Amino acid sequence: MTDLGALADGILAGRYRALAKAITLVEQDDAGIDRLLAEIYPSTGRARIIGVTGSPGAGKSTLVAGMARFYREKGKRVGIIAVDPTSPFTGGAILGDRIRMAELHTDRGVFIRSMATRGFLGGLAKATNDVVDLLDASGFDVVLVETVGVGQDEIEVVRTVQTNVVVLVPGMGDDIQAIKAGIMEIGDIFVVNKADRPGADKTVTEVTMMMSLVEEHGDWVPPIVKTVAPKREGIADLDAAIVRHHAYLEASGELIRRNRERVRIRVETHMKEKFMGRVIGGTITREAYDRLLDEVLSKKQNPHDAAEGVLNRVSFR
Amino acid sequence: MTDLGALADGILAGRYRALAKAITLVEQDDAGIDRLLAEIYPSTGRARIIGVTGSPGAGKSTLVAGMARFYREKGKRVGIIAVDPTSPFTGGAILGDRIRMAELHTDRGVFIRSMATRGFLGGLAKATNDVVDLLDASGFDVVLVETVGVGQDEIEVVRTVQTNVVVLVPGMGDDIQAIKAGIMEIGDIFVVNKADRPGADKTVTEVTMMMSLVEEHGDWVPPIVKTVAPKREGIADLDAAIVRHHAYLEASGELIRRNRERVRIRVETHMKEKFMGRVIGGTITREAYDRLLDEVLSKKQNPHDAAEGVLNRVSFR
Repeated sequence: MTDLGALADGILAGRYRALAKAITLVEQDDAGIDRLLAEIYPSTGRARIIGVTGSPGAGKSTLVAGMARFYREKGKRVGIIAVDPTSPFTGGAILGDRIRMAELHTDRGVFIRSMATRGFLGGLAKATNDVVDLLDASGFDVVLVETVGVGQDEIEVVRTVQTNVVVLVPGMGDDIQAIKAGIMEIGDIFVVNKADRPGADKTVTEVTMMMSLVEEHGDWVPPIVKTVAPKREGIADLDAAIVRHHAYLEASGELIRRNRERVRIRVETHMKEKFMGRVIGGTITREAYDRLLDEVLSKKQNPHDAAEGVLNRVSFR
Repeated sequence: MTDLGALADGILAGRYRALAKAITLVEQDDAGIDRLLAEIYPSTGRARIIGVTGSPGAGKSTLVAGMARFYREKGKRVGIIAVDPTSPFTGGAILGDRIRMAELHTDRGVFIRSMATRGFLGGLAKATNDVVDLLDASGFDVVLVETVGVGQDEIEVVRTVQTNVVVLVPGMGDDIQAIKAGIMEIGDIFVVNKADRPGADKTVTEVTMMMSLVEEHGDWVPPIVKTVAPKREGIADLDAAIVRHHAYLEASGELIRRNRERVRIRVETHMKEKFMGRVIGGTITREAYDRLLDEVLSKKQNPHDAAEGVLNRVSFR
């Protein structure tokens, strides 16, 4: 048994242990977690939520670590959520990276949590949002969300951040160039990382050209920042770009629009989730539902009519 | 207006044009598409559905092209669904690849369709399943589904194939090694592609070692096949492994289990989709729903209670 009231108090007081415990409840899709999230919800909305997106090997984790140190030096508390299953933060990692991250792990002003793609019963995007809320309510000023940015679920995660930083590297060849096309539209800021490698300026030119093909950016022209993450070069420039982007979001009304979209997704996710639980066992017994699936399997029914049949027994008015 | 009856007849008669038209309706999430899919559903279940999963640059598309040619020579009709946004089939491609694919594009026994990750209103997994059904009902003997295998939505796609082939390449370095960990569990067969490169045997050894860490395979021990896709080396071995895997699926009852899971996902996806449409506009007016979202945005309500409030007005019995 978990005392949810005490847990909520612990989170709001910024206690590390309460936070860790609550995130575990999110992972387990625990029955009490929604109550807890409802309780802390009014205390959310202060954190800056920044996405860091790029393919494996782009050096995202080292960049995230550099950003975390930068914000720590400004006295800010930093949360890191690693959604990328290949991230060193996730542990699917190389020893050298893990050692580099070690100092962050021992800093109580930094909270690191990996969300392996598998095993989140309520869905990855929902779980990520919930963890962002917990960190936010617990007084973390900045939340960095590291993702690969491929796949619809990941795209949904990216849609719920305030500023998305897309990380590229020079000279990864045609195959990797191709992947860029898919993430061009989701970048508010582009980083050419490992900028001490040959071809960095060529990559900047390429990004500028690709960007001219994308029309979705509105009034915001995404800046391109060069970084060398292990040497922490360019991190201050990146922060300056993030600050400018946030000012744009506020002035243009885009921040409210993004926050509203985030709210809509969350309300609807809740509804869809609870809905299935009430239909099976409520509208239709578990046994009858299993028989229905067997009928579809044996082609006596089709999936569409089977779903309609159940739904027509629910009264929506 | 589309005459759905005539379209269904065209699909069942194996007409290329009717099939293309129907897939476009899936893409547009057209109102009539569910009716059409219901109509052709009894004619599905004959095609072999094979997933080909691997990171960009692993040579998946060339392998898929090689497999397609192999099956064509055996007189089989082959459908190709490219879910990977970086696939040459998707057009996010390098010219050389596109030329290599050109001969397949002009063969009427081959149907190629790309599913860009974005823009599928009903969800990527649902759309992919629908297209598989259309190809199946239209008399295609083999359907090859090409995916990156990263992200929850892609994992869902992979879960609905009968045999999943995971493609690896020698010597892609530690970063790419890391990604392998994430896709080890979803492989029924492993292919070490570009096996004429140095390090191919080392990769085979690595895969064997990694596989010994995964316990989920049941009685099936995934074979490892070496291929050189552009030279079409190893394709016959790969086919032999696929045939053996299918025999295992049938003998073990696993085929029925996988098909049943596929049916369950489809029925529930239908339900969840239609549910939202009936709640908003039925249980709650669009205007009232917008006001509710505003209240959550301004923290007067939390997402969980907002969703519960609406759901409690729905009568499930």
